[in-house]
Amino acid sequence: MYALIMAGGKGTRLWPISRRGQPKQLLELLFERTLLQQAYERISPLISDDNIFVATVESYAEAVREQIPNVPASNIVIEPEGRGTAPCIGLAALYLRREDPDAVMAVLTSDHIIEDEEGFRRSLLAAAEVAKEGYLVTFGIKPDRPHTGYGYIKRGEVLKKIGGYEVFRVERFTEKPDLAKAWEFLESGDYYWNSGMFVWKASTVLREMERLMPKLHAQLMEIDAYIGTERERDVLEAVWVGVEEGTIDYGVMEGAADVVVIPVDIGWSDVGSWATIYELLPSDEEGNVIVGEHVGLDTTGSLILSQRRLVATIGLEGMIVVDAEGVVLICPKERAQDVKRLVEELKKKGMDAHL
Amino acid sequence: MYALIMAGGKGTRLWPISRRGQPKQLLELLFERTLLQQAYERISPLISDDNIFVATVESYAEAVREQIPNVPASNIVIEPEGRGTAPCIGLAALYLRREDPDAVMAVLTSDHIIEDEEGFRRSLLAAAEVAKEGYLVTFGIKPDRPHTGYGYIKRGEVLKKIGGYEVFRVERFTEKPDLAKAWEFLESGDYYWNSGMFVWKASTVLREMERLMPKLHAQLMEIDAYIGTERERDVLEAVWVGVEEGTIDYGVMEGAADVVVIPVDIGWSDVGSWATIYELLPSDEEGNVIVGEHVGLDTTGSLILSQRRLVATIGLEGMIVVDAEGVVLICPKERAQDVKRLVEELKKKGMDAHL
Repeated sequence: MYALIMAGGKGTRLWPISRRGQPKQLLELLFERTLLQQAYERISPLISDDNIFVATVESYAEAVREQIPNVPASNIVIEPEGRGTAPCIGLAALYLRREDPDAVMAVLTSDHIIEDEEGFRRSLLAAAEVAKEGYLVTFGIKPDRPHTGYGYIKRGEVLKKIGGYEVFRVERFTEKPDLAKAWEFLESGDYYWNSGMFVWKASTVLREMERLMPKLHAQLMEIDAYIGTERERDVLEAVWVGVEEGTIDYGVMEGAADVVVIPVDIGWSDVGSWATIYELLPSDEEGNVIVGEHVGLDTTGSLILSQRRLVATIGLEGMIVVDAEGVVLICPKERAQDVKRLVEELKKKGMDAHL
Repeated sequence: MYALIMAGGKGTRLWPISRRGQPKQLLELLFERTLLQQAYERISPLISDDNIFVATVESYAEAVREQIPNVPASNIVIEPEGRGTAPCIGLAALYLRREDPDAVMAVLTSDHIIEDEEGFRRSLLAAAEVAKEGYLVTFGIKPDRPHTGYGYIKRGEVLKKIGGYEVFRVERFTEKPDLAKAWEFLESGDYYWNSGMFVWKASTVLREMERLMPKLHAQLMEIDAYIGTERERDVLEAVWVGVEEGTIDYGVMEGAADVVVIPVDIGWSDVGSWATIYELLPSDEEGNVIVGEHVGLDTTGSLILSQRRLVATIGLEGMIVVDAEGVVLICPKERAQDVKRLVEELKKKGMDAHL
């Protein structure tokens, strides 16, 4: 089995720590090991370094190499610019197919937390078995609340059982629901969160791209023709200019044949907002998560995160304070999702220096 | 008439903008003119520069000279260290008495706001008339809410009327009351806030010090003996080591004879907390007072003050955010008084670098 760790994402919801040059997966502040390092380490017992590929963009490439030096430099697939998951996966699949025409690839995220690593690896093995038969395998996370920030997967009939896992046909992918829909999904028991992780043969996903994203597929074939030649990088760069943004979910999964979902319970979190960071990190007696220097009176249930400066608080309850280079962010935990909107506001106002 | 502007205070309640080396009266951030400059300018039409004295401590002396260059350097009375208002006033009185044995001195604060400057000058003239007769004159501010952060003055019988002002004998000074007491004071109509400004003859206050603070008076006389000699500074410094902290209110006013109060309505504010700053500065459509760079979603009724950095807020209501050198303070407006407690907490924890 091969792994593709996608490490080109931007992650604006953890602004202002996460910035243009410092995306979520590469941040060193929050955890002992960065999320990218954790992503590598959790598959390392299962997949040899030679078979681990990492896709990223030029501006992150150096940091990626430094953080996971065991992955061979030639396995780092560098997109000239991020174009979403579909072009990223397609490009990596070209290289994997050359290594092994029947290569099974696990497409993995670099900016999520998985608490049960052992269970995760078991589910990867089960998924690989199913992928070998030509299926596109997704992992479904059983929802425990009506989250409106995720896509959902509706399961259909059971296809088979394998290694203790049930494998369902996928009836439908749905976009992020509103709250009423999310409650419906939660109560029905038939829906899973789309974890954004997949297992399939490189050849299978390229075949489905040919059918569902023919323009992208043609561009990939143009690149493929020059792989291993002197002009490889030039052609990639030239073609990439014309590649359209596209996610694998909308571009391929929604229309693909033979898509299945394996429900997993692996302590997954997408670390999607500061509120999630608060949940993931250990809190003190007052229910505060403190990283950095803080002094407070009557401060409870809050995330206080500072890189260099003192944060002084009085009477805060359930707040997020993130003090980063040149910026301090203050918002209630329940508004953590709106950081994304705030970042858009900054863009609109031309305050790009802070992004 | 002479003026003594007291400019040696520390003002921790405006931390973290107000710091050890940067007390409230000298801050350049908040208003177009510093509070010290405003204090000077509001008496300037009434009192010539030669008759304006300023008391401060060594560490602020240079900034004081720079901010009010029109005041002769020889009129700046420099205490080796702050010891409260009683020693400060006593020391300055020595110099004034030498200028004019019958000198009437207006003792003024350097860190307050007075909106009606014209009215203030009129009240000073009236007070001077009363002071010439040997009274210790205080200004009483009519309370408009049950403030627990001020001392109060209870008026007694009317002594006289002068220049449109009523002059009352003072029945009693009281310390900062609790809330129940403060309501009582407010409702009775007999109580005024102690503005901390006084008018008296230098000789009168020194005579009362002799009676009520004999130790301090003896120390002052020791200093007085060397004024104008080569040893003046050495003696001042040597004596000052043994001078005890003491306020004029507790040390003199509470026990003094012939104390009167002139009620004034001059738009007085002691700028005693960030909540007051919020009230004093103009607010925008959302009721926010913004100084510095800010971007916000759903932020209302808040004071956002930043010297160099971007403050980003979501869903804040009635909050204070002050971003200063190396520190950011966040607290609800109604907790603004507790900044003082927070500063004490910092001292206790040995985090002196932030003070």
